[in-house]
Amino acid sequence: MFLDSKLAFELDSYFEQAASPMEVHPDVAAAAQYSLGAGGKRIRPALCIGAAKTITSSQCKDSTTVVAVTLELIHTYSLIHDDLPAMDDDDMRRGKPSLHKAFDEATAILVGDGLQARAFELIADAPDLSAEQKVCMIKVLAQAAGMEGMVGGQYIDIQAVDSDMTLDELQAMHEMKTGALIQASLALGGIAAGASDEQLEALDIYGRNIGLAFQVVDDILDVEGDPEALGKTAGKDAEANKPTYVKLLGLDGAKTEAARLLQAAIDALDMFGESADQLRELARYIVERDR
Amino acid sequence: MFLDSKLAFELDSYFEQAASPMEVHPDVAAAAQYSLGAGGKRIRPALCIGAAKTITSSQCKDSTTVVAVTLELIHTYSLIHDDLPAMDDDDMRRGKPSLHKAFDEATAILVGDGLQARAFELIADAPDLSAEQKVCMIKVLAQAAGMEGMVGGQYIDIQAVDSDMTLDELQAMHEMKTGALIQASLALGGIAAGASDEQLEALDIYGRNIGLAFQVVDDILDVEGDPEALGKTAGKDAEANKPTYVKLLGLDGAKTEAARLLQAAIDALDMFGESADQLRELARYIVERDR
Repeated sequence: MFLDSKLAFELDSYFEQAASPMEVHPDVAAAAQYSLGAGGKRIRPALCIGAAKTITSSQCKDSTTVVAVTLELIHTYSLIHDDLPAMDDDDMRRGKPSLHKAFDEATAILVGDGLQARAFELIADAPDLSAEQKVCMIKVLAQAAGMEGMVGGQYIDIQAVDSDMTLDELQAMHEMKTGALIQASLALGGIAAGASDEQLEALDIYGRNIGLAFQVVDDILDVEGDPEALGKTAGKDAEANKPTYVKLLGLDGAKTEAARLLQAAIDALDMFGESADQLRELARYIVERDR
Repeated sequence: MFLDSKLAFELDSYFEQAASPMEVHPDVAAAAQYSLGAGGKRIRPALCIGAAKTITSSQCKDSTTVVAVTLELIHTYSLIHDDLPAMDDDDMRRGKPSLHKAFDEATAILVGDGLQARAFELIADAPDLSAEQKVCMIKVLAQAAGMEGMVGGQYIDIQAVDSDMTLDELQAMHEMKTGALIQASLALGGIAAGASDEQLEALDIYGRNIGLAFQVVDDILDVEGDPEALGKTAGKDAEANKPTYVKLLGLDGAKTEAARLLQAAIDALDMFGESADQLRELARYIVERDR
């Protein structure tokens, strides 16, 4: 996890609340907790909080933490559904059995559905944000998560097995599948901190580049990564004959592309000065990570 | 369909827009359209619009129509997921093959996910509503759809096969599984029309009773109904050995209970006078329907 330990602890306690409001069936809460507590990299919350700190340079407010949590809820729900047998059929996730293996498929479908709803509920209910900020965030998050974003990208990804894609098509797919939610993470942090349109635009350019870099590095790790560090099966994309950056650009070409995207992301932060240091550090972590 | 034909046409055109924004993959849009266009009873949009008319007695505003559509999006997504093999394993829905039979399971999971996101996006983007109204609606809708509502109720329902339930437990399950979204339909219509807390409370009592009546009648139709009119397999609950009102109360007892709930729902509307006539008519339709 990239976040400092105090904030990470705070996020974890929010995850527990998110999964277990009073009225939730204990099995459903346990299943949600199983997936949320599996210890992902928490990159989306970190980007959200990093964006808010870039704008305000002040302490992370409670509202920003809540908003950061909603991004991990959406991300986790998408992993739960993507792992299902009818989708990517992945038995392992974050080093543990996938939710549908640890529980069952019906529970995995329902918990995914419930986490999505909970994300929107949490934003609607967040403290210290204006109704206008909340509406703006919900629109951004829904578009990023939905058919024009993550869901649409996953659909294209599933169809892509055994198919040829140009670099442009591959990029368009990833911009929907993972990029949209990463860009939304930055937008939500920015909105929470009262960013101007110009500041949101800079965060968005950073987000677009770092989102693509994230995927290029994922493709590199799928070839070079240590399955134990990754916590999931390596070599899966090649085995499934899916288009990847490594396949289209070669391993060296993919590394050059990741470096180019990292630089473009960091350049986009120029207007912010030192207040964007956390986002710069995150960008380097995303490109240099081993899992 | 219960709605008058002009409004029904208007809703259908909104469904088309909801399923097919510019950026959506044509296959995903076609699958969403397949389920949305299958011609359900549109009871939730009708309840939402009926509630708005009860409060304002004026023409149905564009914003109310958009909000009414979001309830059908959530309902349709839940039917798509409930029909999946890992859940209720239903091959037929609204007289046509279920989405996962007409397309495939992955598409059904993703389209359901996408419709849920779209519902929240449409409220965030609705015309002529204040940000406060939108936030309030999104909170109500997310709670009704989520782990404390529809998702949680469906989880209990799946576990209920071959189990015994008391009448109280059966009622609690249905209040989550179908009642919560029906109550949300009335709340959203009321909020759109600027209802007072007292008015929202009356709509909620009506909704709780009519929601339960809806389920009692469903159980009666599962025993007595004509599969062709229903557009789905009858006798399925008995076959699956699920607890039902008919099993707990007998056929006559269930009919008496439906009549009691209908009366309680209509009594809750007393404060509104004639402006609630559409909701009264809807209540009678819900109890007297044959499908």
